[in-house]
Amino acid sequence: MTTRTVLSSATKEVVIGFDRPFCIIGERINPTGRKKLAEAMKGGDFSMVEADALAQVAAGATMLDVNAGIPLADEPRILAETIKLVQSLVDVPLSIDSSIIDALAAGLAVYQGRPLVNSVTGEDESLERVLPLVKKYDAAVVAISNDETGISEDPDVRYAVAKKIVERAEDHGISRQDVVVDPLVMPIGAMGTAGVQAFTLIRRLREELKVNTTCGASNISFGLPNRHVVNAHFLSMAACSGMTSAIMNPLHAEEMNGIRAANMLNALDPDCRAWLNANREGGPPAGGAGEVREGRRGGREGRRRQGGA
Amino acid sequence: MTTRTVLSSATKEVVIGFDRPFCIIGERINPTGRKKLAEAMKGGDFSMVEADALAQVAAGATMLDVNAGIPLADEPRILAETIKLVQSLVDVPLSIDSSIIDALAAGLAVYQGRPLVNSVTGEDESLERVLPLVKKYDAAVVAISNDETGISEDPDVRYAVAKKIVERAEDHGISRQDVVVDPLVMPIGAMGTAGVQAFTLIRRLREELKVNTTCGASNISFGLPNRHVVNAHFLSMAACSGMTSAIMNPLHAEEMNGIRAANMLNALDPDCRAWLNANREGGPPAGGAGEVREGRRGGREGRRRQGGA
Repeated sequence: MTTRTVLSSATKEVVIGFDRPFCIIGERINPTGRKKLAEAMKGGDFSMVEADALAQVAAGATMLDVNAGIPLADEPRILAETIKLVQSLVDVPLSIDSSIIDALAAGLAVYQGRPLVNSVTGEDESLERVLPLVKKYDAAVVAISNDETGISEDPDVRYAVAKKIVERAEDHGISRQDVVVDPLVMPIGAMGTAGVQAFTLIRRLREELKVNTTCGASNISFGLPNRHVVNAHFLSMAACSGMTSAIMNPLHAEEMNGIRAANMLNALDPDCRAWLNANREGGPPAGGAGEVREGRRGGREGRRRQGGA
Repeated sequence: MTTRTVLSSATKEVVIGFDRPFCIIGERINPTGRKKLAEAMKGGDFSMVEADALAQVAAGATMLDVNAGIPLADEPRILAETIKLVQSLVDVPLSIDSSIIDALAAGLAVYQGRPLVNSVTGEDESLERVLPLVKKYDAAVVAISNDETGISEDPDVRYAVAKKIVERAEDHGISRQDVVVDPLVMPIGAMGTAGVQAFTLIRRLREELKVNTTCGASNISFGLPNRHVVNAHFLSMAACSGMTSAIMNPLHAEEMNGIRAANMLNALDPDCRAWLNANREGGPPAGGAGEVREGRRGGREGRRRQGGA
């Protein structure tokens, strides 16, 4: 049996799985480090959220991550409002992203369908507070492989933490099919072994623990020039090592074409259809992977690149 | 012990190995499908060969492949002349490329250093004619995993053919360190499993047979749009699976940056130095991988891309 994590919105089902095209989880709806977005969301202006939701789905996002982590704001209320708004605009399933348990609970209470909860860690407090919520709402969960001792540089320790979370989830009645492990990607500029560590861990998580995997891909290129190309090759190499999803920006053409190429080369793009649709002669690619969509060609990144990259 | 294939020119040594940056074997000096080059070489005009040799090394080729396969021409003489000329211009080791045994012999007779002989197949006639020559000149050899029955679509059969060649080489006193296996890459547009087949076979060749690997990378994208991006991701994914060299065009920026990214992500680019050198802000990359070179920035591909890609 192959591993499958089934997510849904009110009207659409998405499967993260070993036999599925790579799942692209759009990362844009997140006020962390986006001061204007944080101010707007705090003040009740969701126009940027709307634009980010539509643009990411048009560019080919399979799912969207939604985060409302704004300092000194009522995060549970804002997260729930944001989720309701995004679900009214697009039909992809969502990842409900918060480090605050009340915010996760508020998001889960209003969500329509089966979401991904982002995230639980290997810390006992996190396990004991997040897993019952995941079970209560029959959701799936992102498991981040760190614990009370922090983020280990030893991939064996990170594997052990992931294994602990999976086992604890099973104790709570959550199948390992519903635990998507994030092996934690370090910047290659700070840790030269960050790439091989991630690839080795991803392979082990797939082959031994038999779980789906995800990561915040852009962390790998922190501080380097030409980051999108580094991210793109990290993504295709991680997919080659067995990674099945990533939380990433679908508005960047390099990364999206890296994932399309990886799907094709991993025999997950029958007849090269998605590659051909996105790369017909005469137009640059502008997002979109895994299926055909109207309007993909007009994406933001496509225009920017035509102009001068 | 790690696998290392040591090649040399009169003055420079290059190592293909599991612990080395990816070896880029420049493919341009080859009249197959290049009518003008074929005519020129046949008529004794080697100016295009000269330009191809210099440009490829400037762009970062670790080695150069030299082929003189021109119909109805005196291939042994032309190949020997071409090798002498190229060795007078650049200091990288060469791959002596011919399907004609007399041409390989003529090339080996004039070569200074330790070359790669390209190639031997699993066919008995090829094994019995090429391997003694490789042994006589203490060279290394590219082993192509097909035999009398053709190119199998079954990766297990191709692995078995590679194993047979390695064993036969050992019978001739040639170490498996000096056999670089080409798993044969099919076009993904014709065979949807071409990518996963290649990755699986490369991993097995490295882990079980413990040999270096190479391939003609661009074959993967035959017939597809945006070929360079497909080639680039095929290369980084193949490197992630353990491939240690490729016969390829070093004048294409996408492929070269794919290899640089793969080296960095495979922990084979200490301090990201090659990446930083090739990707400094303000200038597009123009070839070069694995070490710093003067003049890399002015490469042909760099100018072409600045102009309009």
